[in-house]
Amino acid sequence: MTSLDIEDLVGHAREGQPRAVARLLSLVEDAHPALRDVLRELTPHIGNAWVIGLTGPPGVGKSTTTSMLLGALRARGKRVAVLAIDPSSPFSGGALLGDRIRMTEHATDEGVFIRSMATRGHLGGLTLATPQSVRVLDAAGFDVVLIETVGVGQSEVDVVTLADSVMVLLAPGMGDGIQAAKAGVLEIADLFVVNKADRDGADATIKDVKNMIALSRRGVRGASWRQPIVPTVATTGDGADDLMGALTEHWEWLESSGELTRRRLARAQTEVEAIAMRQLRAELADLRGGEALELLSKRVVDAEIDPYSAADELLAALRD
Amino acid sequence: MTSLDIEDLVGHAREGQPRAVARLLSLVEDAHPALRDVLRELTPHIGNAWVIGLTGPPGVGKSTTTSMLLGALRARGKRVAVLAIDPSSPFSGGALLGDRIRMTEHATDEGVFIRSMATRGHLGGLTLATPQSVRVLDAAGFDVVLIETVGVGQSEVDVVTLADSVMVLLAPGMGDGIQAAKAGVLEIADLFVVNKADRDGADATIKDVKNMIALSRRGVRGASWRQPIVPTVATTGDGADDLMGALTEHWEWLESSGELTRRRLARAQTEVEAIAMRQLRAELADLRGGEALELLSKRVVDAEIDPYSAADELLAALRD
Repeated sequence: MTSLDIEDLVGHAREGQPRAVARLLSLVEDAHPALRDVLRELTPHIGNAWVIGLTGPPGVGKSTTTSMLLGALRARGKRVAVLAIDPSSPFSGGALLGDRIRMTEHATDEGVFIRSMATRGHLGGLTLATPQSVRVLDAAGFDVVLIETVGVGQSEVDVVTLADSVMVLLAPGMGDGIQAAKAGVLEIADLFVVNKADRDGADATIKDVKNMIALSRRGVRGASWRQPIVPTVATTGDGADDLMGALTEHWEWLESSGELTRRRLARAQTEVEAIAMRQLRAELADLRGGEALELLSKRVVDAEIDPYSAADELLAALRD
Repeated sequence: MTSLDIEDLVGHAREGQPRAVARLLSLVEDAHPALRDVLRELTPHIGNAWVIGLTGPPGVGKSTTTSMLLGALRARGKRVAVLAIDPSSPFSGGALLGDRIRMTEHATDEGVFIRSMATRGHLGGLTLATPQSVRVLDAAGFDVVLIETVGVGQSEVDVVTLADSVMVLLAPGMGDGIQAAKAGVLEIADLFVVNKADRDGADATIKDVKNMIALSRRGVRGASWRQPIVPTVATTGDGADDLMGALTEHWEWLESSGELTRRRLARAQTEVEAIAMRQLRAELADLRGGEALELLSKRVVDAEIDPYSAADELLAALRD
C-alpha cells in the first residue's frame, strides 16, 4: 500500500465508511506491514472514544444485553462500535455474538459497527490486536467502543481489562459458578449486571454479589469506586436506563479521579510493549538465517545444554 | 537456595519423593530465580518421558478417562504424572480435574503424581510453565506425563500441542459442538476418543468424526499418520485396552517416522524462546529505571507519537 492509499483509507474511515473501517481492522488482524503507517496517520485523531468492556460466563445473555446497551447508546445519539472477541478455541462452537447481532435490529443502523475478531493462531495475538483495533475505531469517530468477550481464557480476561469501564454480566441459576468466580470477577469488574432479573433466584444472585463485594475490597481496580449492581431483563429492555446511569457515573468517576488517564496509560503500555515484543520475537526467529533457535533447541533436546543457557546464547546472538 | 539445596532437591525428586517433585514444580510456577540452576541440574536426566496431551470440551468425561488411562498405564508398570492445566478464568468454576482425581483410587499410589497447574496472572505464563514442568517430571523419572486441559482458550490448545501424542475426547450428545469444533480439532488430534460410547448417538458421533477426518487431510500433524477413533466407556473401563493399543501404535509411529524428534524440537524451541522473551520483557520494563515504557506510553496517550514509533524508541534504548 502506498502512503496515498493509506491516507485515503483513513480519510474514508473517518468519514464513517464501514468498508474502510473494516479494511483497517483487517490490517490489524493480519499484522500487515502497512500498519505502522496507518497508525501514524491515525494518531492525531485518537483519545475520544469511551471503551467499555463486557464479559461474563456463557448463558448470562451477553448477546441481548449488548443489543439493549446498543439501543440505549443510540437513543442518546452515540455512534457505537462493537468488537466481539472470538476465543478461537476448537471447542468454543456456536455462532459469534457479533454475527448474531448483525442479523438483528442494528443491522441497518449506520451509527453501529460490529466486528468479530478472530485471532486464532499465535499466542498473545489478542494483546496486540485489541488495543490496535480500539485505536482504529476511536480514530474513526465512534463515541463508544464495546469490547466483548466470553471470558473463558486468561487472554480474554486480560483483554477486557484494557477497557475504560468493565461490565461483568451474571445471571441467576448459574449454580456454583458465581461462588467460584469470586476472586477473578472482583478484580476486573467496575460494575455488575445481574441479567434475567425476573427469574427465580435473581435476589439470591444479587445478594451473593453484594456479599462478595462486601467481603473483599482488596485489589479492586480503583479503590474509591463502589461497584454498583444493576438488575436487568435484557430481553424486555428493563434496567436499560439504570445501566446507562451506572455507566455514566463510572465515566464521571474515571475523569474526576484521574483513573481514566491511568487506564489509558496502561492500555498504551500494553500496546507499545506488544509491538516491541513482536519485533524482538521476529528478530530472534531470524537470527543466523533463522537457524539459531533451531540449532540451540536441538542441543536442548539432546540434553547437551539446559534451556536457560540456550536462551542466553540466543540473546547474545541478538546483541551481536 | 544454595547449589547444595538444589542438588539435594533434584536428587530427592529423582528418588521419587513427591514433595521434592512438588517443590520443583512450585519453583517453575513461581518463575523462581533458582530455576536456572535447577534446570541445569536436571539436564542429564531428560528425554525419557512420553508426553501425552488430553483435551476436549467440558462434559465429555475427561476426568474418568484420565482415571481409566492411569489404571491401564499402571497395570503396565508405568509411573505416570498428570499435569492438569487450570484455565484460570474467573468463570471456569468447578473443581479441578486433578483435585477430583486426587481423592479417588489413585490417591495412595506412589507411581502416580498429580498436579493442578495454576497460571493465573501474566499472559503467556502457560507457554513457559508447561514445557518446564514436563522437564521436571521427565527428569524425576516418570515414564508418562499426561498434560490435560479443558481446551477453552487458545493458550490451552497451544499448550496441549506441545505433547508427543495428543488425544481429543468427544462424546455423543454434544450437539453442534463437534461440527463447530471441526477445523481446530483436526489440527491438534493424533487420536480421537469417543467416550460414553454406550449412549444413544455414539454411532452418529463416530461417523461425524470419520467424515471430518475423511474430508480434510490437510494440515494434520504428521500426514502419514491416520488418526484412529477409539470408542470408550470410561466409567466401566470399556475400551481401555483399545486406547492403550492406539496410543502405543502412535508412539511407535512417532519413533519410526522421525516425528518424535520434530515435536520435541518444537517443544524445546517454545521453551527456549519463552525464556528469552521473558528476559527481554523484563529488560524492557527496567529500561531507564523502569520509566522508559511509561514515559513513551504517555506520549502515545497524548497523541504525540504513534505506538510503533514508541516501540522503536524503546528498542533503541534496549540496544544502547
